[in-house]
Amino acid sequence: MSKDNLTAVLYKPKDLRLEQTPIPEIADDEVLLRMDCVGICGSDVHYWQSGACGSFVLKEPMIMGHEASGVVAKIGAKVKNLEVGDRVAIEPGVPCRYCEFCKTGRYHLCPDIKFCATPPIHGNLARYYKHAADFCYKLPPHVTMEEGALLEPLSVGIHACRRGGVSAGHSVLILGAGPIGLVTMLVARAMGACKIVMTDILQSRLDFAKQLGADHTILVNRESNEDDLVVKIHELLGNYPDISIDASGAQATVRLALLATKSGGVAVLVGMGSPELTVPLAGTVSREVDIRGIFRYVNEYPIALSMISSGQINVKPLVTHHYSLEETLEAYEIARQGLGIKVMIHVQPRDTNNPKKF
Amino acid sequence: MSKDNLTAVLYKPKDLRLEQTPIPEIADDEVLLRMDCVGICGSDVHYWQSGACGSFVLKEPMIMGHEASGVVAKIGAKVKNLEVGDRVAIEPGVPCRYCEFCKTGRYHLCPDIKFCATPPIHGNLARYYKHAADFCYKLPPHVTMEEGALLEPLSVGIHACRRGGVSAGHSVLILGAGPIGLVTMLVARAMGACKIVMTDILQSRLDFAKQLGADHTILVNRESNEDDLVVKIHELLGNYPDISIDASGAQATVRLALLATKSGGVAVLVGMGSPELTVPLAGTVSREVDIRGIFRYVNEYPIALSMISSGQINVKPLVTHHYSLEETLEAYEIARQGLGIKVMIHVQPRDTNNPKKF
Amino acid sequence: MSKDNLTAVLYKPKDLRLEQTPIPEIADDEVLLRMDCVGICGSDVHYWQSGACGSFVLKEPMIMGHEASGVVAKIGAKVKNLEVGDRVAIEPGVPCRYCEFCKTGRYHLCPDIKFCATPPIHGNLARYYKHAADFCYKLPPHVTMEEGALLEPLSVGIHACRRGGVSAGHSVLILGAGPIGLVTMLVARAMGACKIVMTDILQSRLDFAKQLGADHTILVNRESNEDDLVVKIHELLGNYPDISIDASGAQATVRLALLATKSGGVAVLVGMGSPELTVPLAGTVSREVDIRGIFRYVNEYPIALSMISSGQINVKPLVTHHYSLEETLEAYEIARQGLGIKVMIHVQPRDTNNPKKF
Amino acid sequence: MSKDNLTAVLYKPKDLRLEQTPIPEIADDEVLLRMDCVGICGSDVHYWQSGACGSFVLKEPMIMGHEASGVVAKIGAKVKNLEVGDRVAIEPGVPCRYCEFCKTGRYHLCPDIKFCATPPIHGNLARYYKHAADFCYKLPPHVTMEEGALLEPLSVGIHACRRGGVSAGHSVLILGAGPIGLVTMLVARAMGACKIVMTDILQSRLDFAKQLGADHTILVNRESNEDDLVVKIHELLGNYPDISIDASGAQATVRLALLATKSGGVAVLVGMGSPELTVPLAGTVSREVDIRGIFRYVNEYPIALSMISSGQINVKPLVTHHYSLEETLEAYEIARQGLGIKVMIHVQPRDTNNPKKF
Ligand SMILES: NC(=O)c1ccc[n+]([C@@H]2O[C@H](COP(=O)([O-])OP(=O)(O)OC[C@H]3O[C@@H](n4cnc5c(N)ncnc54)[C@H](O)[C@@H]3O)[C@@H](O)[C@H]2O)c1
Ligand SMILES: NC(=O)c1ccc[n+]([C@@H]2O[C@H](COP(=O)([O-])OP(=O)(O)OC[C@H]3O[C@@H](n4cnc5c(N)ncnc54)[C@H](O)[C@@H]3O)[C@@H](O)[C@H]2O)c1
Ligand SMILES: NC(=O)c1ccc[n+]([C@@H]2O[C@H](COP(=O)([O-])OP(=O)(O)OC[C@H]3O[C@@H](n4cnc5c(N)ncnc54)[C@H](O)[C@@H]3O)[C@@H](O)[C@H]2O)c1
Ligand SMILES: NC(=O)c1ccc[n+]([C@@H]2O[C@H](COP(=O)([O-])OP(=O)(O)OC[C@H]3O[C@@H](n4cnc5c(N)ncnc54)[C@H](O)[C@@H]3O)[C@@H](O)[C@H]2O)c1
Ligand SMILES: [Zn+2]
Ligand SMILES: [Zn+2]
Ligand SMILES: [Zn+2]
Ligand SMILES: [Zn+2]
Repeated sequence: MSKDNLTAVLYKPKDLRLEQTPIPEIADDEVLLRMDCVGICGSDVHYWQSGACGSFVLKEPMIMGHEASGVVAKIGAKVKNLEVGDRVAIEPGVPCRYCEFCKTGRYHLCPDIKFCATPPIHGNLARYYKHAADFCYKLPPHVTMEEGALLEPLSVGIHACRRGGVSAGHSVLILGAGPIGLVTMLVARAMGACKIVMTDILQSRLDFAKQLGADHTILVNRESNEDDLVVKIHELLGNYPDISIDASGAQATVRLALLATKSGGVAVLVGMGSPELTVPLAGTVSREVDIRGIFRYVNEYPIALSMISSGQINVKPLVTHHYSLEETLEAYEIARQGLGIKVMIHVQPRDTNNPKKF
Repeated sequence: MSKDNLTAVLYKPKDLRLEQTPIPEIADDEVLLRMDCVGICGSDVHYWQSGACGSFVLKEPMIMGHEASGVVAKIGAKVKNLEVGDRVAIEPGVPCRYCEFCKTGRYHLCPDIKFCATPPIHGNLARYYKHAADFCYKLPPHVTMEEGALLEPLSVGIHACRRGGVSAGHSVLILGAGPIGLVTMLVARAMGACKIVMTDILQSRLDFAKQLGADHTILVNRESNEDDLVVKIHELLGNYPDISIDASGAQATVRLALLATKSGGVAVLVGMGSPELTVPLAGTVSREVDIRGIFRYVNEYPIALSMISSGQINVKPLVTHHYSLEETLEAYEIARQGLGIKVMIHVQPRDTNNPKKF
Repeated sequence: MSKDNLTAVLYKPKDLRLEQTPIPEIADDEVLLRMDCVGICGSDVHYWQSGACGSFVLKEPMIMGHEASGVVAKIGAKVKNLEVGDRVAIEPGVPCRYCEFCKTGRYHLCPDIKFCATPPIHGNLARYYKHAADFCYKLPPHVTMEEGALLEPLSVGIHACRRGGVSAGHSVLILGAGPIGLVTMLVARAMGACKIVMTDILQSRLDFAKQLGADHTILVNRESNEDDLVVKIHELLGNYPDISIDASGAQATVRLALLATKSGGVAVLVGMGSPELTVPLAGTVSREVDIRGIFRYVNEYPIALSMISSGQINVKPLVTHHYSLEETLEAYEIARQGLGIKVMIHVQPRDTNNPKKF
Repeated sequence: MSKDNLTAVLYKPKDLRLEQTPIPEIADDEVLLRMDCVGICGSDVHYWQSGACGSFVLKEPMIMGHEASGVVAKIGAKVKNLEVGDRVAIEPGVPCRYCEFCKTGRYHLCPDIKFCATPPIHGNLARYYKHAADFCYKLPPHVTMEEGALLEPLSVGIHACRRGGVSAGHSVLILGAGPIGLVTMLVARAMGACKIVMTDILQSRLDFAKQLGADHTILVNRESNEDDLVVKIHELLGNYPDISIDASGAQATVRLALLATKSGGVAVLVGMGSPELTVPLAGTVSREVDIRGIFRYVNEYPIALSMISSGQINVKPLVTHHYSLEETLEAYEIARQGLGIKVMIHVQPRDTNNPKKF
């Protein structure tokens, strides 16, 4: 095994460095991974720019990266589900396994979960990284390493749709057409949604959404009147959305989710915005519109992999930019500018580990 | 049948009159009822004082009354579930039976529901009143007419607890100890809640709550710090509440419901307050605390009757004041002052129709 | 309006006659329909051959037909959802609207439901037929009259998948590849199932299933060993099916559904076979495999229409045979022989009422 | 610490011996317990009499005991939830924590679960026993060691009622009035069931059930006609049971559960009887009566403890016989004869560890 372990370490806001770190030692239930693909997500850019994301604050240098895939380089003594050489997608959060949340099937809410690149836990944007073996999912040969990395945002979309109860025949409103809004749209469709309308403030993102399969799009801006938008949504769908999913986090989109949803329907909040929002709750009470936040995903990686592997969902078009590990800073800069959709960092040359090419 | 049909008609804000109205004619699926008990609820007082409640506004004179019981005086040609002389509780909302909401078991959300004493629909604070027979529930002999009228607020409490998923072992926080908070507490207990803490701004209401069976109470006031209250709630319960139920409608109580509830738990909103509220939604998203409003009740009258009839719940202590139909204005004035808990108007002398006395 | 009302009336087993009957009078909430397409289903053949199906027994002459579409010829005084000339699919069961089942959203279990061509209720294989307006669903121009008639079996498949909880990532086993098994497969796929294996005793049906999109098929016969079949199913799927759906009704298929399903999964029973079955229940208890029967459908017609209309599901290939009303007996004979999949009777010449051709 | 570790070891059918075994060494996440109470359950008697229970077969000598409580004698290095001296109830099954079932909150279905006194795993009928710390639940001072041991059967009852969805207003039929039927009845009541009818073939058990709170009882025997029993159940309840729970395992009781339950209701199967049963499945299909088996419990120990601790459920009357560890064989013999309800073995003199006496 090479001793090179080039690693992307965030020291403080705007101070992201590539440097050597020790290759980690593994425990009995862990594997060592030779990293392949690592996507960049909005939270990564947040940490990089401001040193914080929501209530999490960077206090010491932290290795970045959590949307990732790799190849098994070494396995712990008790590992049975994997072998050296297996190509795997990495579910980045490993819970404590002992608490009430872990036992009731909601391990994503475990207060002791260790989640990659969420302070103070290191991520996997490095040559080598170790992880709990049971949170690594073996990819079949026809699934690429990029797709492996994309299971992460895809799992968020699946969690959002499952929490919203998206199913056959539903009309769905998705607010925000960034990576999360887009994967959510793909998932909603694959779960049976018949009509999907998406909103954004950028026409380019709506065009992308339309190409990927959204039925209708609405361009909004600061002047958009919220009552008019509700009417427009109902007109485009021919009815009220059964489920609305906020994938933006703005107060305006959360409000629209609450106002537009059918009585008795569900408003799913994925977006993370300001801590405090002013919202028309009385209407959601009297119309029994349920509000359900979502936090990451739980038990959704295997589903995401099945959906990709069976061809039910195609996430490949989401990757618009490619960089090597050495080009990490450029990659982050492109992500920061919001150009394209998903920026992918290739720790190994693209397609090295793909039996079938991307 | 007597021709006296003394009726309480609200003409405009603060103009509630007792006057004769025609005895209604019944359709084939309806019954004519000789009214017995009619409780006064907060919304009645709202209409009386301001001519409006939430989005409903009084435009023409309206008969008051919706928490009621009566005795069947006449039955329509197709009525099979009732006979003349039956003592019944009246579920005040009759839906259209044809729309999507009616067909999917959520008839309380039917846009065409006719709900007593909600403009422009007349209520039943009168000698005689007609109603859809299938929304009248026959009382067994040991259930009193007052209890029949109390099925209405009790159904709200049952709906709140069912929507919240209250079940064995749960810790429950109830904010507001008015009639709705109190019945909700009784229901939560009867559904298996092990620890119940209630808050109010009035010590008298908390004392009443304690007597009725709340485990703990917290007196709050404008100066109460919300983080301290969260800590205090967790201390009293020994853990986070699985379910929080707002039965007040104040912004402060809604906020507390969201902040105090266990991750993955449910905050049920029953209270109807300002149309817009500023709330810490980001936390409910990242902790996956579901927010579920409730609107009245649906299919809960039969449950309420079973709970009363079997002795699982005792609502009798809630009635603190009694008036005759002729004393309606005094009754409303007492209700307005918030003295006592439930003010009951007896259209017929108390216990006239109770085989077993109250 | 023509006075011709040629009608297919079943007098007794094997005595199906075409004869004139009076054109029905409509009530205020009904519409008169000029019938277009009427499919033949297994139960029709049962009544025709034996005068009975399950616990329902033919006692008086009964008009056949329940998988149907038509064109509105006349509307009742209170009908608002339809106009003369509207092309509609007909949901064949109209419930009482008053009972507990009707109010709780399970109207298909209403003991007083009137269901077409289920004794003693007449069906709609006639020139004219009247129906409750709210159980007629207007077809958009691009949905054909045949598709309208096919909403009936499709709704069964949707009900089966919804009851089974089919969703993203699921592996599904479907036993029996008749019309019901096939639509169920299409629905399961559209709701996110990733791997579907189907069984039948006829290779021809399995070939059809494969063409329609099943991932794997297994030909079974009387000699098939049930344990071997379980192993084979698990091998083909790569895991245990999350949900198994029996669409055959044979004891062998019900047993396989219980034995093959993943612990904690669901076995949905659609098939109607012998009243008594010998099954390995102890295993379903200790593995917590839930068993859920399904009876027709409830609130699924609108979903079926959305799925067809949006192109999520294509049922057109299911119709293999076409006959005119005058050829009803030949049509029934073909259906009896089990040739093809769905036999369609055209009361009006094919495509008369289709803006877009089938 | 004493070196005495008297232990009840089952060598082969009918060969249960008391002998010394080594005091176990604990791992970092385990505690060593000084055992206090160990109840005897039907499965214990099965193993003792026949060496098998269901599909589990005794192959090597096995320590008995799984309904137990003890006092913490030693804690592992990583244990944080317990201290030496804590009085605890022991949840007897410890799952693998890594598999799909463990992660989805259904750890009781974990194929690698280690469950006390289920071959080849040893139980805890001994002076000393070690267990995973997080599956030991600290008892508050007013909960006795006997109650701690009784959390085991109580958890079965809670699991049955939760799986059945027992809630406010329900009518419940419970078939079999042994320990499991009785705790299930107590739980159903505490979760809001309004009417409960129980059946048994022994009048003595029905008398006990009545005393504990069942509303009605029905004595059945081999000659009882099943249709008559259904009628009788409906008469006693005044309606169909919403939920039926088989706590006997006999074919007759399973059949009755399916036949008597309301359309759309649930039949819960707790009883473990013959591997194959002949049942009227067609009726459960066409009436959509769901069948849900239950296997032990999952996440129900904390609920059971809360219910006991808060006084919502009183299981004390269930213990009818007391023996010391040295009298184990006599205790088993009494249990075998089915005299009384629950036979309790006291490894330490009764009340030694109870601040409040039993
Ligand atoms: N809850 C979770 O577990 C979780 C996980 C991942 C991401 N997120 C959050 O989801 C959100 C979306 O993530 P992303 O990566 O797609 O981010 P993104 O910033 O790329 O996408 C957000 C999109 O919303 C659009 N938008 C902004 N204001 C809008 C408005 N008023 N109306 C309509 N659209 C508007 C933006 O133009 C952008 O296209 C972010 O808030 C992120 O923090 C949450
Ligand atoms: N959603 C529905 O279908 C429905 C049905 C009935 C009632 N309601 C609403 O439920 C609420 C309760 O009804 P009620 O009849 O019991 O009203 P109420 O006014 O008698 O009771 C409200 C209680 O909340 C207390 N309160 C006020 N501010 C508080 C605070 N900051 N913290 C704690 N307690 C506080 C009050 O002192 C009072 O005791 C009302 O808002 C009513 O409109 C809703
Ligand atoms: N529950 C309901 O509401 C409902 C509604 C419609 C139909 N059904 C029932 O669903 C079933 C299917 O309906 P259909 O119209 O497709 O009937 P069908 O007879 O055309 O199809 C049944 C299929 O099962 C196959 N089969 C028979 N034995 C088999 C075995 N051992 N293994 C595998 N396959 C086997 C047959 O070859 C046939 O292809 C029937 O029993 C019908 O009564 C129920
Ligand atoms: N599924 C699980 O996880 C689980 C857990 C514990 C026990 N069990 C099973 O639950 C059942 C009950 O356990 P228990 O400890 O109470 O056993 P038990 O033997 O003490 O009680 C069974 C009762 O059923 C009665 N009975 C027998 N035939 C009957 C009939 N035809 N009608 C009505 N009653 C009849 C018996 O008289 C007895 O009182 C057993 O089968 C046991 O194996 C299952
Ligand atoms: Zn945890
Ligand atoms: Zn309606
Ligand atoms: Zn009905
Ligand atoms: Zn496991």
